[in-house]
Amino acid sequence: MIIIGEKINGFIPRTLQAIEAKDESYIREIAKSQTEFGADYLDICAGTAPDIERDTLKWLIGIAQDAVDTPLCIDSSDVNVILEMMKLVKKPGVINSISGEAGKCETILPAIQGTDWKVVALTCDPNGIPTDPEVKFKIAESLIAQAHDVPIGNIFIDPLVTTLATTGSSLLSFNEAVRKIKGAYPEVHITSGLSNISFGMPYRKAINTQFLALAMSAGMDSAIMDPTSPDMRATLYATDALLGNDDYCMNYLTAFRSGLIGPAKKA
Amino acid sequence: MIIIGEKINGFIPRTLQAIEAKDESYIREIAKSQTEFGADYLDICAGTAPDIERDTLKWLIGIAQDAVDTPLCIDSSDVNVILEMMKLVKKPGVINSISGEAGKCETILPAIQGTDWKVVALTCDPNGIPTDPEVKFKIAESLIAQAHDVPIGNIFIDPLVTTLATTGSSLLSFNEAVRKIKGAYPEVHITSGLSNISFGMPYRKAINTQFLALAMSAGMDSAIMDPTSPDMRATLYATDALLGNDDYCMNYLTAFRSGLIGPAKKA
Repeated sequence: MIIIGEKINGFIPRTLQAIEAKDESYIREIAKSQTEFGADYLDICAGTAPDIERDTLKWLIGIAQDAVDTPLCIDSSDVNVILEMMKLVKKPGVINSISGEAGKCETILPAIQGTDWKVVALTCDPNGIPTDPEVKFKIAESLIAQAHDVPIGNIFIDPLVTTLATTGSSLLSFNEAVRKIKGAYPEVHITSGLSNISFGMPYRKAINTQFLALAMSAGMDSAIMDPTSPDMRATLYATDALLGNDDYCMNYLTAFRSGLIGPAKKA
Repeated sequence: MIIIGEKINGFIPRTLQAIEAKDESYIREIAKSQTEFGADYLDICAGTAPDIERDTLKWLIGIAQDAVDTPLCIDSSDVNVILEMMKLVKKPGVINSISGEAGKCETILPAIQGTDWKVVALTCDPNGIPTDPEVKFKIAESLIAQAHDVPIGNIFIDPLVTTLATTGSSLLSFNEAVRKIKGAYPEVHITSGLSNISFGMPYRKAINTQFLALAMSAGMDSAIMDPTSPDMRATLYATDALLGNDDYCMNYLTAFRSGLIGPAKKA
């Protein structure tokens, strides 16, 4: 599993509070803890008003790069902001995101062609976020076609999970899309900003952990998630072992021995 | 999900201790708590030496029936012991178990024909416990054929999960067998004494909960498990909601409101 740590995101109230208070130590702390608990990339999202988005991102990127060597995932809905921020980072990371919306592919794809940058491609378009897995698949196909100059292993399709509270078939539709996409493009990665599944529900971690396990069983091999959550980590290691992705359960056992999972050490 | 509460079982050290100490109040307590937390049946297994198995079972059945109205699941490898214990219970429950081993079907099936008794049928035979899903399926087919006088909805096939620590493909093989069996016999139930999956592993609850979720996604609709475990309960309700078996998440929300799941009230 490729883990994109989700916590440096101004849409998360605790992080927004740190951004507004210019609390550098909190940002530094969540950059370090997410890295320590296995993040392969750190998402960086301002979550602030458009006029201060650039400054916020610069500040966050500066702190994160000073704290850790983990590559970053630049998260903005404004492609021009993304292009600017790409110049500030020390090494290629992930662009979050392109989609079927006009202008995004045209701007971002030429910028990452011939580089090691990865890109998250959302299965939405000007018609909105589809719930039909066939429509999700068609948009994924179109995005992969447009990204023909980018190695397919650098593309992370996010089939955009809808909220379970309003769409009962949310996981089933997501998983069907994952199976179709992985069936047609075995080398493409599938990721998900998965906590959306439990929006509006109580005891969200129960829904989030089981979504993670069930989506992994369909072929999802990345997640934008909180690696500092002991429950998410335990789910991830146990599910990988159960799905036959962890020979002799070595990763699971190592994670247990090092305190990454288990009842003794909770983050 | 049809839950068979696993705790009144002398193979569990704490329960054996209570049996040996004739600690009636402990047995009464686990009969009540498992019922309160949603057990549809209570497994009753002596786990003692053969010469005292009958007396132990009689004692356990007496206490359980005095404490709760939940029907019982008579669990013994000795078919004659099962036949005797069936006479002691107040209402039909579950027989645990028959298998492809000689004599079991021949003795038990005529005894439950025309009654409301259910039966767990294990996919093993004189050759042992198969890991190949095709062999599991063939044994299930043979057992279902032998039980032709028993309504198919009264049969619980247990595809016998092997231990993950020794068989990395354990869940995958189990799930393939479940899909084959459910595909051919949609009305048969599938159950599992699932904690076997994590035998010999540390932090067993991580493996057990994810096994439960992943097996449910393949069609398992019953489990022999500990319903008093908050993690197992949360997994069960969340997975049912994600799999589209819980319209508008009503069961999940009701379980949360009543304290059955959630961080506030842990058993």
